[in-house]
Amino acid sequence: MNREQLFEQIRAKRSFLCVGLDTDLKKVPAHLLEDRAPLFAFNRAVIDATAPYAVAFKPNLAFYEAQGAYGVAQFEATCRYIRRAYPDMMIIADAKRGDIGNTSEMYARALVDLADAVTLAPYMGRDTVDPFLKYPDKWAVILALTSNPSADDFEILKLANGDPLWKEVLRKAKAWGTPDNTMFVVGATRAETLKEVREIVPDHFLLVPGVGAQGGSLEEVARHGMNSQCGLLVNSSRGIIYADNTERFAEAAAEEARKIATEMSALL
Amino acid sequence: MNREQLFEQIRAKRSFLCVGLDTDLKKVPAHLLEDRAPLFAFNRAVIDATAPYAVAFKPNLAFYEAQGAYGVAQFEATCRYIRRAYPDMMIIADAKRGDIGNTSEMYARALVDLADAVTLAPYMGRDTVDPFLKYPDKWAVILALTSNPSADDFEILKLANGDPLWKEVLRKAKAWGTPDNTMFVVGATRAETLKEVREIVPDHFLLVPGVGAQGGSLEEVARHGMNSQCGLLVNSSRGIIYADNTERFAEAAAEEARKIATEMSALL
Repeated sequence: MNREQLFEQIRAKRSFLCVGLDTDLKKVPAHLLEDRAPLFAFNRAVIDATAPYAVAFKPNLAFYEAQGAYGVAQFEATCRYIRRAYPDMMIIADAKRGDIGNTSEMYARALVDLADAVTLAPYMGRDTVDPFLKYPDKWAVILALTSNPSADDFEILKLANGDPLWKEVLRKAKAWGTPDNTMFVVGATRAETLKEVREIVPDHFLLVPGVGAQGGSLEEVARHGMNSQCGLLVNSSRGIIYADNTERFAEAAAEEARKIATEMSALL
Repeated sequence: MNREQLFEQIRAKRSFLCVGLDTDLKKVPAHLLEDRAPLFAFNRAVIDATAPYAVAFKPNLAFYEAQGAYGVAQFEATCRYIRRAYPDMMIIADAKRGDIGNTSEMYARALVDLADAVTLAPYMGRDTVDPFLKYPDKWAVILALTSNPSADDFEILKLANGDPLWKEVLRKAKAWGTPDNTMFVVGATRAETLKEVREIVPDHFLLVPGVGAQGGSLEEVARHGMNSQCGLLVNSSRGIIYADNTERFAEAAAEEARKIATEMSALL
């Protein structure tokens, strides 16, 4: 999926919502636990219910890996189901991978067939990202400024040049690819800094987690982060997929997604 | 496995070798490709052949994930085989994971049953590491200064306090745990900096990749990095496991491991 196609979907749906599939076996409604593949069964219902309001789904690999190979198979089934049932949907594998060149190529091989985009950690530098940029219409989604409390440990450290580390990550990493194959993660809990982000990367899409359970404001994110092609994918995970833990979990998820999309429509 | 037990193994075997299981389906000898689980079949032979000369095995998850759930199952089988056949061997899951708290807990859940230690990327801060430190006798192995060329992009950036980023990672991260549950990754291609590493973390074990294929010198690593409990696990992957690609690959791997262990014995 390229940038133009992504923007088309955003216009068509009047939404820039990414639904995070952080599917925790401990939070799956009880009636699904008898299913042979409960994570996938849960995801399929959530995907079908929320697809009208979303332009992207973001399975978080940790939650599948916690169930071992059996969970990874359900991650794969989830990606394949989205691809088949909703071919225009962006799939973001939230993997936060990062390693040297030959290893990073293996991670690319593992994920680019299943997903359009993969989240990557920048600590080890360009070697981590390059292998993902070789695939046409695939995206590297690079961590810049995250929404967790301990982002303060290193991401905001001031460098000798006066800038925080996350700005240097944006500056260097934007030269590795283009706005057609690179996005950056910027947490919604830092909405005020989105203005500074836009000074460095005016054209890139930003993947913005932290709206919802983590407390970020959608309206502020849009005000400071939107560009002429929207340029935002705002993720919500727990607030949508765990809105209800009974048999009507999917309806409740749809209702939450619809509320966010309505708000997004007004902001577009 | 705790630090005392690890040191005991090092003394008993007179080796601080970690064998990296970067098992690439494209490099597995042809006769193994008929096996139902060729990555595991390869690993088992390499493990049996090199176990006398090694104190740790380090499967690199990317190589298994490149084969999807089927590959992940072979990673699991590899860890279980080592645990059963060589109960005193340290198993390091080379995963380079790094995410916010609730996600990091899932990664911990995925890996601590299988492995003694997990490699972690520090970019997102302490949230990434904490969940791994809750498990007794398990280790967080945190990236500090890696051996790849683009480590220069961010790891060596000078901070406002005059230090490079990797030193700040060592300083902060050493306060999160103890030398009994935390190690640091420092590349052998930077042997001269091991002296500076030891000024900050005199007691911690260091996991040192980059000897062999990446060009680092074992003798220099030992000179600058060794402490009173050895304090080093030196990894070699490709130089050992792909020493030969015929039916005698395991013998060749044993021969390479033996050579390194002999050199280590002299350095201890």
